[in-house]
Amino acid sequence: MSMRSILLFGAGRSASSLIKYLIDHAGEQQWRLTVADRAVEQARRLIQGGEAVAAAVALDASDGGARAALIAKHDLVISMLPHFMHMDVLRDCLRLKKHVITPSYVPDELWPLDAEFKAAGLVVLNEMGVDPGIDHMSAMRIIDGLKAKGARIEAFESYCGGLVAPESDDNPWGYKFSWNPRNVVLAGQGPAARYIHDGELKYIPYHKLFRRTARVEIPGLGGFEGYANRDSLKYRSMYGIADIPTMLRGTLRKEGYCAAWDIFVQLGCTEDGFKMELPAGATWSDYLRSFLPASAPGSDLRKALAEYLGLAPDGPGMQRLDWLGLFGNGRIGEAGLSPAATLQRLLEAKWVLGPQDKDLLVMWHRFRYAAEGRTKEIHATLAVTGQDSVHTAMARTVGLPMAIGAKLLLNGRIGQRGVLLPVKPELYGPILDELADLGIAFTDREVEL
Amino acid sequence: MSMRSILLFGAGRSASSLIKYLIDHAGEQQWRLTVADRAVEQARRLIQGGEAVAAAVALDASDGGARAALIAKHDLVISMLPHFMHMDVLRDCLRLKKHVITPSYVPDELWPLDAEFKAAGLVVLNEMGVDPGIDHMSAMRIIDGLKAKGARIEAFESYCGGLVAPESDDNPWGYKFSWNPRNVVLAGQGPAARYIHDGELKYIPYHKLFRRTARVEIPGLGGFEGYANRDSLKYRSMYGIADIPTMLRGTLRKEGYCAAWDIFVQLGCTEDGFKMELPAGATWSDYLRSFLPASAPGSDLRKALAEYLGLAPDGPGMQRLDWLGLFGNGRIGEAGLSPAATLQRLLEAKWVLGPQDKDLLVMWHRFRYAAEGRTKEIHATLAVTGQDSVHTAMARTVGLPMAIGAKLLLNGRIGQRGVLLPVKPELYGPILDELADLGIAFTDREVEL
Repeated sequence: MSMRSILLFGAGRSASSLIKYLIDHAGEQQWRLTVADRAVEQARRLIQGGEAVAAAVALDASDGGARAALIAKHDLVISMLPHFMHMDVLRDCLRLKKHVITPSYVPDELWPLDAEFKAAGLVVLNEMGVDPGIDHMSAMRIIDGLKAKGARIEAFESYCGGLVAPESDDNPWGYKFSWNPRNVVLAGQGPAARYIHDGELKYIPYHKLFRRTARVEIPGLGGFEGYANRDSLKYRSMYGIADIPTMLRGTLRKEGYCAAWDIFVQLGCTEDGFKMELPAGATWSDYLRSFLPASAPGSDLRKALAEYLGLAPDGPGMQRLDWLGLFGNGRIGEAGLSPAATLQRLLEAKWVLGPQDKDLLVMWHRFRYAAEGRTKEIHATLAVTGQDSVHTAMARTVGLPMAIGAKLLLNGRIGQRGVLLPVKPELYGPILDELADLGIAFTDREVEL
Repeated sequence: MSMRSILLFGAGRSASSLIKYLIDHAGEQQWRLTVADRAVEQARRLIQGGEAVAAAVALDASDGGARAALIAKHDLVISMLPHFMHMDVLRDCLRLKKHVITPSYVPDELWPLDAEFKAAGLVVLNEMGVDPGIDHMSAMRIIDGLKAKGARIEAFESYCGGLVAPESDDNPWGYKFSWNPRNVVLAGQGPAARYIHDGELKYIPYHKLFRRTARVEIPGLGGFEGYANRDSLKYRSMYGIADIPTMLRGTLRKEGYCAAWDIFVQLGCTEDGFKMELPAGATWSDYLRSFLPASAPGSDLRKALAEYLGLAPDGPGMQRLDWLGLFGNGRIGEAGLSPAATLQRLLEAKWVLGPQDKDLLVMWHRFRYAAEGRTKEIHATLAVTGQDSVHTAMARTVGLPMAIGAKLLLNGRIGQRGVLLPVKPELYGPILDELADLGIAFTDREVEL
């Protein structure tokens, strides 16, 4: 085995466990690792102790020349860059003939390059984090198993959420940030959420998304609510279940979160398309009031808001807003932000995953199938608690599948070429097995209906 | 006076009266007119009878070379092209040193070119239709008059609507298309509507826009409702009333329209960001049902919809949907459209401005001001009925201000240079006067409070 070099773009909060795995296995696997980030200090912090096999470099990934020069010097690229930089890196990898792994959704512009990647003998391994990532792998292991025994799959619902562990859950939202806060604030925006139920196509616009939730009860973990993801339809063909009458993918939150978040959606607080004219000295009450119709001078904000949205003034949603200080006279402190970015400022101060806090990653699949004249359900549950505020459940479940994928790829264990998702046994088999060894394991339960 | 040549891009339904004016005045003004459109037949139809002074040419305006060659041969350009082609034409005009007039909003990218247009001695005359256009002119005449007598302007509300004349109003929506149907279906989408009321900034997200309407009673015309336009704030500085405590610009519809349209907004029927998976053979009932939560098989669509949105099953909004055939088994007839484009197909068949129909353009301003210790209101009303289904009120009020503007510009009557809106007396004075001669006149009324 010769020395192989790995280049990681992006040293954000989800990169910690990936970097640790790569450093821990660098000796045995003969790896050398380079972590490139604009914030080189953060990259240095994450490789600390592994400097013998890993280096941190400062890189502005939008500098095409510097980026390509770095890619050219490595055998494999792992890209955790923001979505808008994604295609640039993938085009570099094609041109410079490098394999690449990412946790991101396949961009529409990537599929047309599939033939070129194949012809070059290259792999682009996408959706290799937790959601998307572990969700595909765990679902496909069950689907392939059901197909092998001739079952007809009638329904598949799948939920995943990055939450806070019960022992660290000390706020009424049951939520703290374990990943990119901006993505949480903008969650669900864009085209309507799409799914299929009993053969009927269903579309949910954003302003109904946090109202049309499903209650999800997970034994041992308690009650959650799930809101639908953007597109549950496109995975039907990718999973080989194109004709399934019911399929829904969703995101989990603790009970009560969605109804409270819906207040922000209804008011327009999560809009990101314009800058508010409120001055930096405006209060959080001013912020809320700007989304309400004009009311009598001196009128009570709580009452006005409750009346506008048809809520109880002291109901659970209003209490959650209160806990955030939104009815108070605290100052926003920054002008010229969008409504969403303004709200994010507040939430980042309130929903902090503290140094002693642990996060919780929950994934839950429910399959209904018919076989041998009987109808059954399979419930598969994954619950991962973070080790600490660095090696969070989020960082571990996003990073470790990529790390294991990198090992398989560099050791020649992946036969497919081109644009791939982890939906074939040669990928999901060894990855799920090693994840289980690392404590990331599903519990399956079969129920006869 | 020497011969001057005018080039018009776009021969759509709002170009008829502009073309007629230019042809009618071509002899006296020594004009030659070229009308360029991809659909040359439509351009030929609109110049019919005026061939001695006007020519129709086929042009794909996205063909930069052909477009520039045509511009180079003329003295003045009038562009009625869709918004996305706008900046290309404006850049051509700067390079080729031509004046240009448009009915469109000033694109953000245009302001930075102001100094270059000025240095070249050129005019870009924007927002020269009805809304924006006549609204600016008529408001500024009043504002300048109030300022001249030392009044303090406390509030300005302004509404405009392209409607159907009472004698042609034979459907429960009180609406037929007198301009681009797509713009009507997508109306109000994008960033939140912004206005100011008693000094408080107000933001209305799209999904509340058709609920937070104002009742607007116009003497002699009856009851209307108005929903807020995108941005009522930016015109405060342009109108020289930066500190006005109340300012709102809105769009007028007949009573009952907004509450019924809101059903589409709430359901998600006006979304344009994705293609629906419904087959072409799906019915309008299938279309509606796809926006509702799953319900029991065979359940009544009307009841399910009414319950979902908290409406009376036989209320006025539901009746308007019924009139469109949305609860019936008529086929959609085309697959792969967005929800909005699907709805547009139906509305284009139902809201036809027939050959015998007349449209109605209504504009209404209300100013409140204080002068000499008294508070008064000025109400200014414009109501224009179309001549027929070609020379509609919409075509006349959009086209004639541009035509008169062209005359002023070519006759050297405009002293300003650079990026202009019609907010100065040298523009609004002669244009409003000539519009009044053409039957497009405001009625002003002063009320002491």
